[in-house]
Amino acid sequence: MARMFYPKFNLVREMNSKLKVGDKATLSKTFTESEVEQFAKISLDDNPIHLDREYAESTVFVQPIVHGILVASLLSGLMGGKFPGHGTVYLGQTLRFMSPVYVDEEVEATVEVVKIRKDKPIITLKTQCVKSDGTIALEGEAVVKVN
Amino acid sequence: MARMFYPKFNLVREMNSKLKVGDKATLSKTFTESEVEQFAKISLDDNPIHLDREYAESTVFVQPIVHGILVASLLSGLMGGKFPGHGTVYLGQTLRFMSPVYVDEEVEATVEVVKIRKDKPIITLKTQCVKSDGTIALEGEAVVKVN
Repeated sequence: MARMFYPKFNLVREMNSKLKVGDKATLSKTFTESEVEQFAKISLDDNPIHLDREYAESTVFVQPIVHGILVASLLSGLMGGKFPGHGTVYLGQTLRFMSPVYVDEEVEATVEVVKIRKDKPIITLKTQCVKSDGTIALEGEAVVKVN
Repeated sequence: MARMFYPKFNLVREMNSKLKVGDKATLSKTFTESEVEQFAKISLDDNPIHLDREYAESTVFVQPIVHGILVASLLSGLMGGKFPGHGTVYLGQTLRFMSPVYVDEEVEATVEVVKIRKDKPIITLKTQCVKSDGTIALEGEAVVKVN
């Protein structure tokens, strides 16, 4: 593979001039029963709390809940698909799962730039998923490399 | 929903007597192109680095890579499906993405109990996904509530 040569200084300047602290983006999604079933197969996570209505009724959640890591994947969708967008490379993510997201319940992911490194094209974003009633489902921080 | 009453002390004792620091479990999986495509649709992450061979060739990765959060979902699969098993509730996860996992490349997830709280049925696990060549794909820590 041929590699283009860019002087490092210019590359970093170009990245910093496009992104600034406080820039943010959102993405909403409702995970359906069929999507939760598909994800359970792909991830091998067949915890009945996500799939079995009868089992869910016997727990504190009462209804089936979306896998926490599937809710978190909306952050990946937002960052990789929309902002910063294609070419974004995930370096790290912290996640605190605060409230369950139920199947068929809308959730909105938000990412906001909180830090931009001056030496490398690496940024830190505050990440959050909020339910339609305003409850925080999960929050944390992402570190990504931007193109 | 009727709730069973358990004296708190007994509940915690029972949990602690089953799990101990150093307990671990593993789960292997090869993510296929079709699974990566399904996950891209569910998570809305259509970053071409995961889906487009031609685009991937123009990047440092050369070949399409599995979404980092999809690799991480194997940890959720392992903890929710096998160990600690059904009923496990995710409270937190940290993730450091170290190396890309390619589509059709096997990865093995390992979780190991590193801390057991005495006051609550909450444990901390060291979490890791390792590629078949021994390279660490991702690592971090999970905090879960166990039943």
